[in-house]
Amino acid sequence: MNRSETGDRKVVFAEKMSWLQDNLQYMGSLVEEAIGRSIEALKNQDMDLARAVIEGDDRIDQLEEEIEEKCLEVIATQQPMAKDLRRVATLFKMINDLERMADYATSISKITLRIADQPLIKPLVDIPRMAVLSQKMVKQSLDAYVREDVELAKAVGTDDDEVDQLFGQIFRELLTIMMENPKTITQATHLLFVGRWLERISDHATNIAEEVIFLVTGEKKNLNE
Amino acid sequence: MNRSETGDRKVVFAEKMSWLQDNLQYMGSLVEEAIGRSIEALKNQDMDLARAVIEGDDRIDQLEEEIEEKCLEVIATQQPMAKDLRRVATLFKMINDLERMADYATSISKITLRIADQPLIKPLVDIPRMAVLSQKMVKQSLDAYVREDVELAKAVGTDDDEVDQLFGQIFRELLTIMMENPKTITQATHLLFVGRWLERISDHATNIAEEVIFLVTGEKKNLNE
Repeated sequence: MNRSETGDRKVVFAEKMSWLQDNLQYMGSLVEEAIGRSIEALKNQDMDLARAVIEGDDRIDQLEEEIEEKCLEVIATQQPMAKDLRRVATLFKMINDLERMADYATSISKITLRIADQPLIKPLVDIPRMAVLSQKMVKQSLDAYVREDVELAKAVGTDDDEVDQLFGQIFRELLTIMMENPKTITQATHLLFVGRWLERISDHATNIAEEVIFLVTGEKKNLNE
Repeated sequence: MNRSETGDRKVVFAEKMSWLQDNLQYMGSLVEEAIGRSIEALKNQDMDLARAVIEGDDRIDQLEEEIEEKCLEVIATQQPMAKDLRRVATLFKMINDLERMADYATSISKITLRIADQPLIKPLVDIPRMAVLSQKMVKQSLDAYVREDVELAKAVGTDDDEVDQLFGQIFRELLTIMMENPKTITQATHLLFVGRWLERISDHATNIAEEVIFLVTGEKKNLNE
């Protein structure tokens, strides 16, 4: 291969990577939106919105497939080496995390539909707070990838600690409510699951952040202690 | 490339795939074991065993890393095309599912440690049944990959339905126990999470089975309806 061919290949690879990153961030924005809407629907007992989240999951699954296909195509046709291959492989893993997060937003929306026929046992404050943090983590973990920004990736880990703390708080509070009034048990249990799903969403964002750190530094870091 | 070079490349690729598959199945056996032991520890309130599961998770994480590295190495050095590339990519995704399953076994073991100071509120029957089914699903989904056996992959989906049903049963039973006796609420909630983690483990096995079906037939099938 002469120098100009190598140069051409680099240009084509950069173009493909740029397509991949754009679509990764687009997928991320859909996932962020799904998280936000699933909690808004829960809070306002808005069944239409909950259904919209569930229906929107297909688009996210489809996007995952498209990006995955493109990753494999880039690997097959561009045969990237070393760091470039790792870049594609990391993105390939990340979209899987994103897809799982969207599944959790769907699970939350299913719970919303289940408990929509009864008033909420408490105004939701900490759960929406967890959701806002998770959304921020999703965005920042993807930005950290695109910019290869290790500090930003580490910040995702800090937010994850806060999400875990909030969940601990919610857990204790809901247990107390259940013990005081056994009639609340069914709904409280469902709300506990919502908290857990948000915690898992933030774990996935943390996974992504760890992958980014590994990509940039070659160091395996556990941000989720 | 002349015919003998192509032949050599095929032989080398087959050797690498064989290493990957062996290690995939080894990792699968560790995950199966972790699931089984986490439930045994829970059932017998065996804190040492629970701790062993938690400690064993590092080995599984490490194995995931090793296999992942090898996948990238095979892609970079062998530059497999079409179906072969997809084989490697599928395996790459599968080990991620396996790693997540092991995380759930760890989460279960942490619950065991938390509730070890109090007698169980009920003898555990359905939870161990879910665990046995999940273990079978892990094994069969990996076997389905190695043999490219679509029927076996579909059978994993059938088991998943049974796991979901068992979880529904456990959910209703634990709610009843909590309502009858609010003192049981804390432990019952923890046991509910154990049920959910097992359900998620079986979802991951189902993911793998779906990947296998896609690899063999090119068809995206949702086994988890």
